[in-house]
Amino acid sequence: MAAWSELLAGVRGVLLDISGVLYDGGEGGGAAITGSVEAVARLKRSRLKVRFCTNESQKSRADLVGLLQRLGFDVSESEVTAPAPAACLILKQRGLRPHLLVHDGVRSEFDQIDTSNPNCVVIADAGEDFSYQNMNKAFQVLMELENPVLFSLGKGRYYKETSGLMLDVGPYMKALEYACGIEAEVVGKPSPEFFKSALQEMGVEAHEAIMIGDDIVGDVGGAQRYGMRALQVRTGKFRCAQTAP
Amino acid sequence: MAAWSELLAGVRGVLLDISGVLYDGGEGGGAAITGSVEAVARLKRSRLKVRFCTNESQKSRADLVGLLQRLGFDVSESEVTAPAPAACLILKQRGLRPHLLVHDGVRSEFDQIDTSNPNCVVIADAGEDFSYQNMNKAFQVLMELENPVLFSLGKGRYYKETSGLMLDVGPYMKALEYACGIEAEVVGKPSPEFFKSALQEMGVEAHEAIMIGDDIVGDVGGAQRYGMRALQVRTGKFRCAQTAP
Repeated sequence: MAAWSELLAGVRGVLLDISGVLYDGGEGGGAAITGSVEAVARLKRSRLKVRFCTNESQKSRADLVGLLQRLGFDVSESEVTAPAPAACLILKQRGLRPHLLVHDGVRSEFDQIDTSNPNCVVIADAGEDFSYQNMNKAFQVLMELENPVLFSLGKGRYYKETSGLMLDVGPYMKALEYACGIEAEVVGKPSPEFFKSALQEMGVEAHEAIMIGDDIVGDVGGAQRYGMRALQVRTGKFRCAQTAP
Repeated sequence: MAAWSELLAGVRGVLLDISGVLYDGGEGGGAAITGSVEAVARLKRSRLKVRFCTNESQKSRADLVGLLQRLGFDVSESEVTAPAPAACLILKQRGLRPHLLVHDGVRSEFDQIDTSNPNCVVIADAGEDFSYQNMNKAFQVLMELENPVLFSLGKGRYYKETSGLMLDVGPYMKALEYACGIEAEVVGKPSPEFFKSALQEMGVEAHEAIMIGDDIVGDVGGAQRYGMRALQVRTGKFRCAQTAP
Protein backbone atom coordinates (compact mmCIF):
# COMPACT_ATOMS: atom_id res chain seq x y z
CA MET A 1 0.00 0.00 0.00
CA ALA A 2 1.25 3.47 -0.87
CA ALA A 3 2.22 5.79 1.96
CA TRP A 4 -0.47 8.12 3.28
CA SER A 5 1.51 11.17 2.21
CA GLU A 6 1.47 9.90 -1.36
CA LEU A 7 -2.24 9.04 -1.30
CA LEU A 8 -3.11 12.44 0.03
CA ALA A 9 -0.67 14.54 -2.04
CA GLY A 10 -2.43 17.66 -3.33
CA VAL A 11 -5.64 17.05 -1.37
CA ARG A 12 -7.24 20.31 -0.30
CA GLY A 13 -10.73 19.17 0.59
CA VAL A 14 -12.34 16.25 2.42
CA LEU A 15 -15.91 15.10 1.83
CA LEU A 16 -17.23 13.06 4.73
CA ASP A 17 -20.14 10.67 4.51
CA ILE A 18 -22.21 10.77 7.71
CA SER A 19 -24.13 7.55 8.44
CA GLY A 20 -21.75 4.65 9.07
CA VAL A 21 -18.76 7.00 9.14
CA LEU A 22 -19.57 9.51 11.88
CA TYR A 23 -22.36 7.60 13.59
CA ASP A 24 -24.65 4.57 13.36
CA GLY A 25 -28.35 5.39 13.54
CA GLY A 26 -30.62 3.47 15.90
CA GLU A 27 -32.48 3.65 19.18
CA GLY A 28 -32.56 7.15 20.64
CA GLY A 29 -31.03 8.64 17.46
CA GLY A 30 -27.93 6.48 17.34
CA ALA A 31 -24.37 6.51 18.59
CA ALA A 32 -21.15 8.21 17.47
CA ILE A 33 -18.58 5.79 16.05
CA THR A 34 -15.53 5.58 18.30
CA GLY A 35 -12.97 8.26 17.45
CA SER A 36 -15.13 10.04 14.89
CA VAL A 37 -15.96 13.16 16.93
CA GLU A 38 -12.25 13.77 17.52
CA ALA A 39 -11.39 12.93 13.89
CA VAL A 40 -13.77 15.62 12.60
CA ALA A 41 -12.38 18.12 15.11
CA ARG A 42 -8.81 17.37 13.98
CA LEU A 43 -9.75 17.71 10.30
CA LYS A 44 -11.33 21.06 11.03
CA ARG A 45 -8.19 22.24 12.85
CA SER A 46 -6.07 21.20 9.84
CA ARG A 47 -5.42 23.15 6.63
CA LEU A 48 -8.05 21.00 4.82
CA LYS A 49 -11.51 22.16 3.83
CA VAL A 50 -14.21 19.85 5.18
CA ARG A 51 -17.74 19.24 3.94
CA PHE A 52 -20.34 16.63 4.81
CA CYS A 53 -21.87 14.78 1.86
CA THR A 54 -24.73 12.50 2.81
CA ASN A 55 -27.50 10.48 1.21
CA GLU A 56 -29.49 10.77 4.44
CA SER A 57 -33.07 11.16 3.30
CA GLN A 58 -35.10 10.22 6.39
CA LYS A 59 -34.32 13.44 8.23
CA SER A 60 -34.30 17.10 7.27
CA ARG A 61 -30.86 18.71 7.22
CA ALA A 62 -31.77 20.66 10.36
CA ASP A 63 -32.72 17.50 12.27
CA LEU A 64 -29.62 15.65 11.09
CA VAL A 65 -27.30 18.46 12.14
CA GLY A 66 -29.10 18.77 15.50
CA LEU A 67 -28.54 15.05 16.12
CA LEU A 68 -24.85 15.24 15.15
CA GLN A 69 -24.32 18.23 17.41
CA ARG A 70 -25.91 16.36 20.33
CA LEU A 71 -23.48 13.50 19.62
CA GLY A 72 -20.63 16.02 19.96
CA PHE A 73 -19.79 16.81 16.33
CA ASP A 74 -18.71 20.26 15.18
CA VAL A 75 -21.03 20.66 12.17
CA SER A 76 -23.47 23.27 10.89
CA GLU A 77 -26.32 23.04 8.38
CA SER A 78 -24.48 25.08 5.75
CA GLU A 79 -21.69 22.47 5.68
CA VAL A 80 -24.01 19.63 4.64
CA THR A 81 -24.87 18.53 1.08
CA ALA A 82 -28.02 16.37 1.20
CA PRO A 83 -30.33 14.95 -1.48
CA ALA A 84 -33.70 16.44 -0.44
CA PRO A 85 -32.67 20.10 -0.99
CA ALA A 86 -30.98 19.04 -4.25
CA ALA A 87 -34.19 17.37 -5.38
CA CYS A 88 -36.26 20.46 -4.58
CA LEU A 89 -33.99 22.50 -6.85
CA ILE A 90 -34.48 20.05 -9.73
CA LEU A 91 -38.27 19.92 -9.22
CA LYS A 92 -38.48 23.72 -9.34
CA GLN A 93 -36.22 23.98 -12.38
CA ARG A 94 -38.28 21.44 -14.32
CA GLY A 95 -41.72 22.52 -13.08
CA LEU A 96 -42.45 19.09 -11.61
CA ARG A 97 -45.03 18.35 -8.91
CA PRO A 98 -44.04 15.25 -6.95
CA HIS A 99 -45.99 12.53 -5.26
CA LEU A 100 -43.78 12.00 -2.20
CA LEU A 101 -42.95 8.57 -0.82
CA VAL A 102 -40.71 9.81 1.96
CA HIS A 103 -40.28 9.56 5.72
CA ASP A 104 -42.22 12.11 7.75
CA GLY A 105 -38.90 13.38 9.11
CA VAL A 106 -37.84 14.80 5.73
CA ARG A 107 -41.23 16.06 4.54
CA SER A 108 -40.54 19.60 5.78
CA GLU A 109 -37.79 19.96 3.15
CA PHE A 110 -40.56 19.87 0.52
CA ASP A 111 -42.76 22.52 2.20
CA GLN A 112 -42.23 24.99 -0.65
CA ILE A 113 -42.97 22.42 -3.38
CA ASP A 114 -46.36 22.09 -5.09
CA THR A 115 -47.51 18.50 -4.67
CA SER A 116 -50.99 18.89 -6.17
CA ASN A 117 -51.93 16.82 -9.22
CA PRO A 118 -48.52 15.06 -9.28
CA ASN A 119 -46.57 14.52 -12.50
CA CYS A 120 -43.63 12.64 -10.99
CA VAL A 121 -42.71 10.52 -7.95
CA VAL A 122 -39.93 11.16 -5.43
CA ILE A 123 -38.85 8.29 -3.19
CA ALA A 124 -36.42 8.52 -0.31
CA ASP A 125 -35.39 6.21 2.51
CA ALA A 126 -38.91 5.93 3.93
CA GLY A 127 -38.17 3.14 6.42
CA GLU A 128 -41.39 1.81 7.95
CA ASP A 129 -43.34 3.99 5.51
CA PHE A 130 -42.32 1.60 2.70
CA SER A 131 -45.62 -0.20 3.28
CA TYR A 132 -47.29 -2.14 0.48
CA GLN A 133 -50.00 0.48 0.36
CA ASN A 134 -47.56 3.38 -0.04
CA MET A 135 -45.48 1.53 -2.63
CA ASN A 136 -48.61 0.64 -4.57
CA LYS A 137 -49.80 4.24 -4.51
CA ALA A 138 -46.45 5.46 -5.93
CA PHE A 139 -46.65 2.71 -8.57
CA GLN A 140 -50.19 3.69 -9.55
CA VAL A 141 -49.22 7.39 -9.86
CA LEU A 142 -46.35 6.44 -12.18
CA MET A 143 -48.52 4.12 -14.29
CA GLU A 144 -51.07 6.90 -14.81
CA LEU A 145 -48.42 9.23 -16.28
CA GLU A 146 -47.71 9.32 -20.00
CA ASN A 147 -44.00 9.88 -19.29
CA PRO A 148 -43.39 8.49 -15.82
CA VAL A 149 -40.54 10.24 -13.96
CA LEU A 150 -39.15 8.71 -10.79
CA PHE A 151 -36.55 10.43 -8.61
CA SER A 152 -34.73 8.39 -5.99
CA LEU A 153 -32.83 10.16 -3.22
CA GLY A 154 -29.78 7.91 -3.39
CA LYS A 155 -29.71 4.26 -4.43
CA GLY A 156 -27.99 2.67 -1.46
CA ARG A 157 -28.62 -1.04 -0.91
CA TYR A 158 -28.65 -0.94 2.87
CA TYR A 159 -27.20 0.82 5.87
CA LYS A 160 -26.30 -0.19 9.37
CA GLU A 161 -28.19 0.76 12.47
CA THR A 162 -27.13 -0.22 15.94
CA SER A 163 -29.70 -3.06 15.72
CA GLY A 164 -28.41 -4.45 12.40
CA LEU A 165 -28.50 -3.97 8.63
CA MET A 166 -31.51 -2.07 7.25
CA LEU A 167 -32.85 -1.82 3.70
CA ASP A 168 -32.14 1.55 2.12
CA VAL A 169 -34.02 3.31 -0.68
CA GLY A 170 -32.18 1.52 -3.51
CA PRO A 171 -34.10 -1.77 -3.34
CA TYR A 172 -37.40 0.14 -3.42
CA MET A 173 -36.17 2.21 -6.37
CA LYS A 174 -35.39 -1.06 -8.19
CA ALA A 175 -38.85 -2.38 -7.31
CA LEU A 176 -40.61 0.61 -8.89
CA GLU A 177 -38.25 0.60 -11.89
CA TYR A 178 -39.12 -3.02 -12.59
CA ALA A 179 -42.84 -2.59 -11.92
CA CYS A 180 -43.13 0.35 -14.32
CA GLY A 181 -40.41 -0.57 -16.85
CA ILE A 182 -38.58 2.72 -16.27
CA GLU A 183 -35.22 3.98 -14.98
CA ALA A 184 -35.08 6.30 -11.99
CA GLU A 185 -33.07 9.52 -11.83
CA VAL A 186 -30.83 9.29 -8.77
CA VAL A 187 -30.40 12.47 -6.72
CA GLY A 188 -27.52 11.97 -4.29
CA LYS A 189 -24.36 9.91 -4.35
CA PRO A 190 -23.13 8.42 -6.73
CA SER A 191 -24.66 11.00 -9.11
CA PRO A 192 -21.94 13.26 -10.62
CA GLU A 193 -24.15 16.37 -10.23
CA PHE A 194 -24.33 15.74 -6.50
CA PHE A 195 -20.55 15.55 -6.05
CA LYS A 196 -20.18 18.59 -8.29
CA SER A 197 -22.43 20.71 -6.10
CA ALA A 198 -20.65 19.59 -2.92
CA LEU A 199 -17.23 20.45 -4.40
CA GLN A 200 -18.47 23.83 -5.64
CA GLU A 201 -19.64 24.68 -2.12
CA MET A 202 -16.11 23.86 -0.87
CA GLY A 203 -14.36 25.67 -3.72
CA VAL A 204 -12.22 22.62 -4.47
CA GLU A 205 -11.62 20.72 -7.74
CA ALA A 206 -12.36 17.01 -8.01
CA HIS A 207 -8.67 16.06 -8.27
CA GLU A 208 -7.98 17.98 -5.05
CA ALA A 209 -10.66 16.18 -3.04
CA ILE A 210 -11.08 12.88 -1.22
CA MET A 211 -14.37 11.23 -0.31
CA ILE A 212 -14.49 9.19 2.89
CA GLY A 213 -17.41 6.77 3.17
CA ASP A 214 -18.56 3.27 4.02
CA ASP A 215 -20.42 2.55 0.76
CA ILE A 216 -18.28 0.98 -1.95
CA VAL A 217 -20.72 2.03 -4.70
CA GLY A 218 -22.25 5.32 -3.55
CA ASP A 219 -19.20 6.81 -1.87
CA VAL A 220 -16.07 5.18 -3.28
CA GLY A 221 -17.16 4.24 -6.80
CA GLY A 222 -19.11 7.45 -7.33
CA ALA A 223 -16.30 9.71 -6.16
CA GLN A 224 -13.67 7.88 -8.22
CA ARG A 225 -15.79 8.10 -11.35
CA TYR A 226 -16.01 11.84 -10.75
CA GLY A 227 -12.22 12.13 -10.62
CA MET A 228 -11.85 12.28 -6.85
CA ARG A 229 -9.88 10.08 -4.55
CA ALA A 230 -11.83 7.93 -2.13
CA LEU A 231 -11.28 6.00 1.06
CA GLN A 232 -13.57 3.31 2.47
CA VAL A 233 -13.84 3.11 6.24
CA ARG A 234 -14.30 -0.24 7.97
CA THR A 235 -17.26 0.96 10.01
CA GLY A 236 -20.96 1.26 9.16
CA LYS A 237 -22.12 -1.15 6.49
CA PHE A 238 -18.56 -2.23 5.62
CA ARG A 239 -18.27 -6.01 5.24
CA CYS A 240 -15.10 -7.88 4.25
CA ALA A 241 -16.65 -9.58 1.20
CA GLN A 242 -18.76 -7.05 -0.60
CA THR A 243 -20.42 -7.58 -3.95
CA ALA A 244 -21.13 -4.56 -6.07
CA PRO A 245 -24.60 -4.87 -7.60
CA MET B 1 -53.39 -11.84 -39.03
CA ALA B 2 -53.40 -15.54 -39.81
CA ALA B 3 -56.70 -17.41 -39.60
CA TRP B 4 -57.56 -19.01 -36.27
CA SER B 5 -57.54 -22.47 -37.82
CA GLU B 6 -53.94 -21.92 -38.90
CA LEU B 7 -52.88 -20.53 -35.52
CA LEU B 8 -54.42 -23.45 -33.72
CA ALA B 9 -53.43 -26.26 -36.12
CA GLY B 10 -52.22 -29.29 -34.18
CA VAL B 11 -53.10 -27.85 -30.79
CA ARG B 12 -54.17 -30.59 -28.36
CA GLY B 13 -53.91 -28.79 -25.05
CA VAL B 14 -54.78 -25.37 -23.63
CA LEU B 15 -53.11 -23.85 -20.60
CA LEU B 16 -55.20 -21.11 -19.04
CA ASP B 17 -53.85 -18.41 -16.77
CA ILE B 18 -56.35 -17.58 -14.03
CA SER B 19 -56.02 -14.03 -12.61
CA GLY B 20 -56.82 -11.45 -15.30
CA VAL B 21 -58.06 -14.17 -17.67
CA LEU B 22 -60.81 -15.93 -15.75
CA TYR B 23 -61.41 -13.34 -13.06
CA ASP B 24 -60.13 -10.11 -11.52
CA GLY B 25 -59.42 -10.35 -7.78
CA GLY B 26 -60.72 -7.69 -5.43
CA GLU B 27 -63.35 -6.95 -2.82
CA GLY B 28 -65.26 -10.06 -1.74
CA GLY B 29 -62.88 -12.33 -3.67
CA GLY B 30 -63.27 -10.69 -7.06
CA ALA B 31 -65.44 -11.03 -10.14
CA ALA B 32 -65.51 -13.37 -13.14
CA ILE B 33 -64.51 -11.67 -16.40
CA THR B 34 -67.45 -11.49 -18.80
CA GLY B 35 -67.73 -14.62 -20.92
CA SER B 36 -64.95 -16.52 -19.16
CA VAL B 37 -67.15 -19.04 -17.29
CA GLU B 38 -68.81 -20.07 -20.55
CA ALA B 39 -65.46 -20.07 -22.41
CA VAL B 40 -64.00 -22.58 -19.96
CA ALA B 41 -67.12 -24.70 -20.18
CA ARG B 42 -66.90 -24.75 -24.00
CA LEU B 43 -63.21 -25.63 -23.93
CA LYS B 44 -63.99 -28.52 -21.61
CA ARG B 45 -66.73 -29.75 -23.92
CA SER B 46 -64.27 -29.64 -26.86
CA ARG B 47 -61.70 -32.23 -27.87
CA LEU B 48 -58.94 -30.13 -26.22
CA LYS B 49 -57.23 -30.94 -22.96
CA VAL B 50 -57.45 -28.06 -20.50
CA ARG B 51 -55.23 -27.18 -17.57
CA PHE B 52 -54.97 -24.10 -15.37
CA CYS B 53 -51.47 -22.66 -14.99
CA THR B 54 -51.27 -19.85 -12.47
CA ASN B 55 -48.69 -17.80 -10.62
CA GLU B 56 -51.27 -17.16 -7.89
CA SER B 57 -49.28 -17.24 -4.69
CA GLN B 58 -51.52 -15.43 -2.20
CA LYS B 59 -53.94 -18.32 -1.86
CA SER B 60 -53.57 -22.05 -1.42
CA ARG B 61 -54.72 -24.12 -4.40
CA ALA B 62 -57.74 -25.28 -2.39
CA ASP B 63 -58.83 -21.70 -1.63
CA LEU B 64 -58.27 -20.58 -5.21
CA VAL B 65 -60.32 -23.46 -6.63
CA GLY B 66 -63.06 -22.82 -4.05
CA LEU B 67 -63.25 -19.19 -5.15
CA LEU B 68 -63.37 -20.09 -8.84
CA GLN B 69 -66.10 -22.66 -8.23
CA ARG B 70 -68.16 -20.02 -6.38
CA LEU B 71 -67.72 -17.73 -9.41
CA GLY B 72 -69.18 -20.52 -11.56
CA PHE B 73 -66.09 -22.13 -13.09
CA ASP B 74 -65.79 -25.86 -13.73
CA VAL B 75 -62.37 -26.49 -12.17
CA SER B 76 -60.87 -28.92 -9.66
CA GLU B 77 -57.69 -28.77 -7.59
CA SER B 78 -56.00 -31.53 -9.59
CA GLU B 79 -56.30 -29.43 -12.77
CA VAL B 80 -54.25 -26.52 -11.37
CA THR B 81 -50.46 -26.02 -11.62
CA ALA B 82 -49.41 -23.43 -9.02
CA PRO B 83 -46.02 -22.24 -7.73
CA ALA B 84 -46.32 -23.02 -4.00
CA PRO B 85 -46.63 -26.81 -4.40
CA ALA B 86 -43.83 -26.66 -7.01
CA ALA B 87 -41.63 -24.77 -4.54
CA CYS B 88 -42.29 -27.33 -1.79
CA LEU B 89 -41.07 -30.08 -4.09
CA ILE B 90 -37.82 -28.20 -4.79
CA LEU B 91 -37.26 -27.41 -1.10
CA LYS B 92 -37.64 -31.08 -0.18
CA GLN B 93 -35.40 -32.27 -3.03
CA ARG B 94 -32.63 -29.87 -2.02
CA GLY B 95 -33.03 -30.17 1.75
CA LEU B 96 -33.73 -26.44 2.15
CA ARG B 97 -35.50 -24.83 5.10
CA PRO B 98 -37.17 -21.58 4.05
CA HIS B 99 -37.84 -18.32 5.79
CA LEU B 100 -41.28 -17.55 4.33
CA LEU B 101 -42.29 -14.07 3.21
CA VAL B 102 -45.73 -15.07 1.98
CA HIS B 103 -49.38 -14.16 2.44
CA ASP B 104 -51.15 -15.96 5.27
CA GLY B 105 -53.54 -17.41 2.68
CA VAL B 106 -50.83 -19.60 1.13
CA ARG B 107 -48.97 -20.56 4.30
CA SER B 108 -50.86 -23.87 4.64
CA GLU B 109 -49.16 -25.13 1.44
CA PHE B 110 -45.89 -25.14 3.43
CA ASP B 111 -47.28 -27.06 6.44
CA GLN B 112 -45.08 -30.09 5.73
CA ILE B 113 -41.90 -28.01 5.27
CA ASP B 114 -39.31 -27.53 8.02
CA THR B 115 -38.86 -23.78 8.52
CA SER B 116 -36.55 -23.94 11.55
CA ASN B 117 -33.09 -22.37 11.29
CA PRO B 118 -33.71 -21.18 7.71
CA ASN B 119 -31.10 -21.57 4.97
CA CYS B 120 -33.05 -19.87 2.18
CA VAL B 121 -35.89 -17.39 1.64
CA VAL B 122 -39.13 -17.92 -0.27
CA ILE B 123 -41.12 -14.88 -1.31
CA ALA B 124 -44.54 -14.89 -2.88
CA ASP B 125 -47.15 -12.26 -3.63
CA ALA B 126 -47.52 -11.19 -0.01
CA GLY B 127 -49.67 -8.10 -0.64
CA GLU B 128 -50.06 -6.05 2.54
CA ASP B 129 -47.53 -8.35 4.22
CA PHE B 130 -44.79 -6.73 2.11
CA SER B 131 -44.18 -4.38 5.03
CA TYR B 132 -40.78 -2.80 5.56
CA GLN B 133 -40.31 -4.95 8.63
CA ASN B 134 -41.04 -8.20 6.78
CA MET B 135 -38.86 -7.22 3.80
CA ASN B 136 -36.03 -6.26 6.15
CA LYS B 137 -36.29 -9.58 7.99
CA ALA B 138 -36.04 -11.52 4.69
CA PHE B 139 -33.06 -9.33 3.72
CA GLN B 140 -31.33 -9.97 7.04
CA VAL B 141 -31.84 -13.74 6.76
CA LEU B 142 -30.27 -13.69 3.28
CA MET B 143 -27.33 -11.54 4.40
CA GLU B 144 -26.56 -13.96 7.23
CA LEU B 145 -26.21 -16.90 4.80
CA GLU B 146 -22.89 -17.81 3.25
CA ASN B 147 -24.66 -18.76 0.01
CA PRO B 148 -27.92 -16.83 0.00
CA VAL B 149 -30.71 -18.60 -1.93
CA LEU B 150 -33.87 -16.70 -2.79
CA PHE B 151 -36.91 -18.35 -4.40
CA SER B 152 -39.58 -16.13 -5.90
CA LEU B 153 -42.99 -17.59 -6.70
CA GLY B 154 -43.33 -15.85 -10.06
CA LYS B 155 -41.81 -12.55 -11.10
CA GLY B 156 -44.88 -10.67 -12.33
CA ARG B 157 -44.68 -6.89 -12.30
CA TYR B 158 -48.29 -6.23 -11.36
CA TYR B 159 -51.78 -7.60 -11.68
CA LYS B 160 -55.20 -6.06 -11.87
CA GLU B 161 -57.79 -6.10 -9.13
CA THR B 162 -61.23 -4.62 -9.46
CA SER B 163 -59.87 -1.54 -7.63
CA GLY B 164 -56.88 -1.03 -9.96
CA LEU B 165 -53.34 -2.23 -10.68
CA MET B 166 -51.49 -3.89 -7.79
CA LEU B 167 -47.79 -4.61 -7.33
CA ASP B 168 -46.99 -8.30 -7.73
CA VAL B 169 -44.07 -10.26 -6.27
CA GLY B 170 -41.62 -9.34 -9.07
CA PRO B 171 -40.78 -5.84 -7.83
CA TYR B 172 -40.08 -7.21 -4.35
CA MET B 173 -37.92 -9.97 -5.81
CA LYS B 174 -35.92 -7.27 -7.62
CA ALA B 175 -35.62 -5.31 -4.37
CA LEU B 176 -34.09 -8.27 -2.51
CA GLU B 177 -31.88 -9.19 -5.47
CA TYR B 178 -30.43 -5.67 -5.52
CA ALA B 179 -30.14 -5.40 -1.73
CA CYS B 180 -28.21 -8.68 -1.48
CA GLY B 181 -26.41 -8.67 -4.84
CA ILE B 182 -27.93 -12.03 -5.81
CA GLU B 183 -30.25 -13.50 -8.44
CA ALA B 184 -33.48 -15.20 -7.41
CA GLU B 185 -34.65 -18.58 -8.66
CA VAL B 186 -38.13 -18.10 -10.09
CA VAL B 187 -40.66 -20.85 -9.40
CA GLY B 188 -43.68 -20.32 -11.64
CA LYS B 189 -44.17 -18.78 -15.06
CA PRO B 190 -42.02 -17.97 -17.09
CA SER B 191 -39.74 -20.71 -15.71
CA PRO B 192 -39.37 -23.58 -18.23
CA GLU B 193 -39.58 -26.19 -15.43
CA PHE B 194 -43.00 -24.84 -14.50
CA PHE B 195 -44.42 -25.12 -18.01
CA LYS B 196 -42.83 -28.55 -18.31
CA SER B 197 -44.61 -29.88 -15.24
CA ALA B 198 -47.97 -28.43 -16.38
CA LEU B 199 -47.60 -30.05 -19.83
CA GLN B 200 -46.58 -33.38 -18.29
CA GLU B 201 -49.74 -33.36 -16.17
CA MET B 202 -51.76 -32.82 -19.37
CA GLY B 203 -49.81 -35.39 -21.39
CA VAL B 204 -49.20 -32.89 -24.19
CA GLU B 205 -45.98 -31.77 -25.92
CA ALA B 206 -44.98 -28.10 -25.99
CA HIS B 207 -45.59 -27.77 -29.74
CA GLU B 208 -49.12 -29.11 -29.26
CA ALA B 209 -50.05 -26.60 -26.56
CA ILE B 210 -51.18 -22.99 -26.36
CA MET B 211 -50.91 -20.73 -23.31
CA ILE B 212 -53.61 -18.11 -22.81
CA GLY B 213 -52.72 -15.30 -20.45
CA ASP B 214 -52.70 -11.56 -19.81
CA ASP B 215 -48.99 -11.21 -18.97
CA ILE B 216 -46.75 -10.53 -21.96
CA VAL B 217 -43.64 -11.73 -20.09
CA GLY B 218 -44.80 -14.47 -17.74
CA ASP B 219 -47.45 -16.04 -19.95
CA VAL B 220 -46.71 -15.18 -23.57
CA GLY B 221 -42.91 -14.79 -23.56
CA GLY B 222 -42.38 -17.72 -21.22
CA ALA B 223 -44.59 -20.09 -23.18
CA GLN B 224 -43.07 -19.10 -26.53
CA ARG B 225 -39.54 -19.60 -25.22
CA TYR B 226 -40.61 -23.09 -24.15
CA GLY B 227 -41.81 -23.87 -27.67
CA MET B 228 -45.51 -23.37 -27.09
CA ARG B 229 -47.91 -21.07 -28.83
CA ALA B 230 -49.37 -18.23 -26.79
CA LEU B 231 -52.26 -15.83 -26.91
CA GLN B 232 -52.58 -12.63 -24.92
CA VAL B 233 -56.06 -11.67 -23.78
CA ARG B 234 -57.08 -8.02 -23.58
CA THR B 235 -58.40 -8.34 -20.04
CA GLY B 236 -56.64 -8.27 -16.66
CA LYS B 237 -53.43 -6.28 -16.68
CA PHE B 238 -53.40 -5.90 -20.47
CA ARG B 239 -52.54 -2.36 -21.58
CA CYS B 240 -52.18 -1.21 -25.19
CA ALA B 241 -48.60 0.07 -24.75
CA GLN B 242 -46.69 -2.43 -22.67
CA THR B 243 -42.96 -2.36 -22.05
CA ALA B 244 -41.20 -5.59 -21.26
CA PRO B 245 -38.73 -5.02 -18.41
